[in-house]
Amino acid sequence: MLKLGSAGSLASLAGAVPGVMAEALAEAATARVSKWDVFELSLQGPSAGNPFAEVELSAAFVLGHRTVKVEGFYDGAGSYKVRFMPDEPGAWTWTTSSNAPALDGKAGAFHCVAPGPENRGPVSVRDSFHFGYADGTPFVECGTTCYAWAFQSEATQRQTIETLAASPFNKLRMCLFPKWYLHNRKEPPLYPFPRQGETNDFSKFNAEYFQHLERLILELRHIGVQADLILFHPYDKWGYQSMPAEVDDRYLRYVIARFSAYRNVWWSLANEYDLMQAKTAKDWDRYARILGEYDAFDHLRSIHYGNQPYQYGRGWCTHAGVQDSRLMLGADWRANWRKPVVFDECRYEGNIAPTWGSLSGDAMTRRFWLAAAQGCYCGHGETYLDPNDILWWSHGGVLHGSSAEKIAFLRGLIEETIGVGPGPIGFTNIGEDPPGARRANDAVIFYYFDEQQPAEGNYTLPEGKTYTAEYVDTLKLTRTPLPGEHSGNAAIKLPGTPWGSLWFRQKGVA
Amino acid sequence: MLKLGSAGSLASLAGAVPGVMAEALAEAATARVSKWDVFELSLQGPSAGNPFAEVELSAAFVLGHRTVKVEGFYDGAGSYKVRFMPDEPGAWTWTTSSNAPALDGKAGAFHCVAPGPENRGPVSVRDSFHFGYADGTPFVECGTTCYAWAFQSEATQRQTIETLAASPFNKLRMCLFPKWYLHNRKEPPLYPFPRQGETNDFSKFNAEYFQHLERLILELRHIGVQADLILFHPYDKWGYQSMPAEVDDRYLRYVIARFSAYRNVWWSLANEYDLMQAKTAKDWDRYARILGEYDAFDHLRSIHYGNQPYQYGRGWCTHAGVQDSRLMLGADWRANWRKPVVFDECRYEGNIAPTWGSLSGDAMTRRFWLAAAQGCYCGHGETYLDPNDILWWSHGGVLHGSSAEKIAFLRGLIEETIGVGPGPIGFTNIGEDPPGARRANDAVIFYYFDEQQPAEGNYTLPEGKTYTAEYVDTLKLTRTPLPGEHSGNAAIKLPGTPWGSLWFRQKGVA
Repeated sequence: MLKLGSAGSLASLAGAVPGVMAEALAEAATARVSKWDVFELSLQGPSAGNPFAEVELSAAFVLGHRTVKVEGFYDGAGSYKVRFMPDEPGAWTWTTSSNAPALDGKAGAFHCVAPGPENRGPVSVRDSFHFGYADGTPFVECGTTCYAWAFQSEATQRQTIETLAASPFNKLRMCLFPKWYLHNRKEPPLYPFPRQGETNDFSKFNAEYFQHLERLILELRHIGVQADLILFHPYDKWGYQSMPAEVDDRYLRYVIARFSAYRNVWWSLANEYDLMQAKTAKDWDRYARILGEYDAFDHLRSIHYGNQPYQYGRGWCTHAGVQDSRLMLGADWRANWRKPVVFDECRYEGNIAPTWGSLSGDAMTRRFWLAAAQGCYCGHGETYLDPNDILWWSHGGVLHGSSAEKIAFLRGLIEETIGVGPGPIGFTNIGEDPPGARRANDAVIFYYFDEQQPAEGNYTLPEGKTYTAEYVDTLKLTRTPLPGEHSGNAAIKLPGTPWGSLWFRQKGVA
Repeated sequence: MLKLGSAGSLASLAGAVPGVMAEALAEAATARVSKWDVFELSLQGPSAGNPFAEVELSAAFVLGHRTVKVEGFYDGAGSYKVRFMPDEPGAWTWTTSSNAPALDGKAGAFHCVAPGPENRGPVSVRDSFHFGYADGTPFVECGTTCYAWAFQSEATQRQTIETLAASPFNKLRMCLFPKWYLHNRKEPPLYPFPRQGETNDFSKFNAEYFQHLERLILELRHIGVQADLILFHPYDKWGYQSMPAEVDDRYLRYVIARFSAYRNVWWSLANEYDLMQAKTAKDWDRYARILGEYDAFDHLRSIHYGNQPYQYGRGWCTHAGVQDSRLMLGADWRANWRKPVVFDECRYEGNIAPTWGSLSGDAMTRRFWLAAAQGCYCGHGETYLDPNDILWWSHGGVLHGSSAEKIAFLRGLIEETIGVGPGPIGFTNIGEDPPGARRANDAVIFYYFDEQQPAEGNYTLPEGKTYTAEYVDTLKLTRTPLPGEHSGNAAIKLPGTPWGSLWFRQKGVA
């Protein structure tokens, strides 16, 4: 009865019937699932009636003293699944519970083993203001946006993955519902709920729709990209922005059950939550509670606004994912909210009519630098007019702009230095002008000159430490070591060009 | 006894003694002074004691029903002067009053005639938010800054005048007191008050010091540059920032008596008034009252701050002369204060260490455009390191940067359009994004794209009017007519380059 995981890192186990429990356990002990990969349990159960609404299924996973409970889900055609992401090596056992006898009381086991080299685990907040993989590697957040890429042609989706794989971007903001908006006026190939004409049957899910989404999430995982899943958004013509509360809740539990075992999942309650007029503050609170209750893997959680900043200090959200062009507020927000601040949306590089979509590539790059100097992170998007109306920001495809390469350069600098020396990772704004940021251990300090072009500068370096200095042209992408060693009040000769950045590295600290 | 004005447009009359009054009047009728030029009366009087403190002198100038009273001043060596700027053609008569018999009861007359072509009269506020010359010509304010140029070598002063004459700048911010600051650490050639060692004799003025200043004001007048005279400032080592109140007041009356007949004078109570810790709000109010009481010619008046915006809505000031980099606040300020807003200081083009002095030329240019799109005006300065430590911002000399040419281009566009069609002159911010501004009569509308690079745009044009369109590259300084005529909701194809500006001109309106 055991069916071990097939494609890639997925391990699946058909439910063992009680009579063969011992055999199942014995065999399962040979089932090996890498830490932070997915253990998937597939069971056959009832297909009559409406299993989406009527059948309850969950499983408890046990390792030593720990029990982790997750919900399963109905995948159509009598097929039920439970997905689990083990985070600790060892022999895990599991037992199912269901109101359907065919699914209840199944049990089994698998062995969780050390992950492969590309598997660093899920990302979580590290050192209050930054991110790290579960294996300890700092995660230098560098996001982009393809809101509706999941609803484009297969060819475009393939192209999107290829583009992402070759890009500096390691997080993708994407909607789980299709999008109806400027440059987005077509029906999706599939609908999340059965639909006849203009009528949704919210009592069921369209399993195929969600199977497709999870293939995309897995493809992103394969190329090392975090999937920042946007659960609700206002750009809708199908009724998904104003479903009954119980449908919202069932939808959330369904996507949590389906997707939360994928280590690259982040949750965003909404794109522009405050523009969704059918929802109240209580609704958003309830959604947050549902995430907290059902996501056993505690993925990163945030929400994105249209006009007024959300109160990101609230307990449920792990970081701020803001829409704002006021990059200079980042350091204050960080300090107030005590969380990482990601400028997920600060307008996009492109050339369309709206000002939110016509930044020059250099202006987009500048925003990434301003965010970095605030000790924060920034988000990219591209909105270049295209003869086929394929705009990266929503549809994916290919990149046309000039910022990605320059953002890659910045990401490289941050990655090189985010963890240099002991103590907490990442940068904190210095509160000076020109803006700059420093490591808590003072091993790395940088200034960003923006529109300024000083030919000299005076910098007060931390006492008793000696630094080398490097001049970085953030647009020409050059790095030029400056002569000498510096300490105390350092007077530095600079090239006097705009869009520069000055980097101090403590001598002998790596 | 009559000595008629010598150099240039200056007319001087030696005081006529009562006995020869009729003769004086007859001869004076042949004395001709151009409207808005200076009538200067020179009298010999007491030189014993301290004439600066002890001798009072004023004159009443009469034309028909009007009487205008101005104060005279002691110019040293027994010489007293009264200066007057007639603003109306006709036969003016004058009579002196003094506590010194030799200066009292003198009388005379002169004939005010039409001005020459270069003489447009003083500048005042026009149409609430803009400026105009007294002859009706709009004045497109375009300022720069040489705080301490009056205290540099003769050669540098000469160079400054030549540079200004060839520049787009038509207003110069300059201090009446010498400056002690970064890059300004030398003694001036002259002091405003007699000085022995470190001790000032505040009971007297150094006439030579003020004679020098007025020569410079006249040279500026000659090349068509407004002299924005800064009366107090904090960058001082000689004690001028903290003189006794009665000295401040006497100083103000003295410079008003000396300079206010020059039509190109503007008054600025201070540079960075809020950094002058020895002064209170009451002091600044008193200075403003003195200007109001003694400046018979009602020159433009403002004050400049260091940190917090002054309450420019107050009655005494004619316009706001702000120090601020927040150009986007201009339209709101204008609406709140109901006055022209000039961003007199918004940092300078240059390459020195402080961020206020290291803007790139393009960044300086950008600020002028942002101000223009707010319906406001901007100020220039240059702080390039120089082997002789001659920095334009303070010392004058020559310009090294790239913004002046680009600012000239903008000034040209504004001058071409500020008065097109009927109604009030000048531009008002549209309140849209991208920022733009329009004439009240809608004859001219422009948008500034800043970092945006739209390849298309949609513009709602005023009903029933037809426009031509022009694309302006604000950095490459090109003007490209766009094809077609536009009205209603106009969809325009644009080049898709950053730093552009789109200008609509109503067809047939000039």
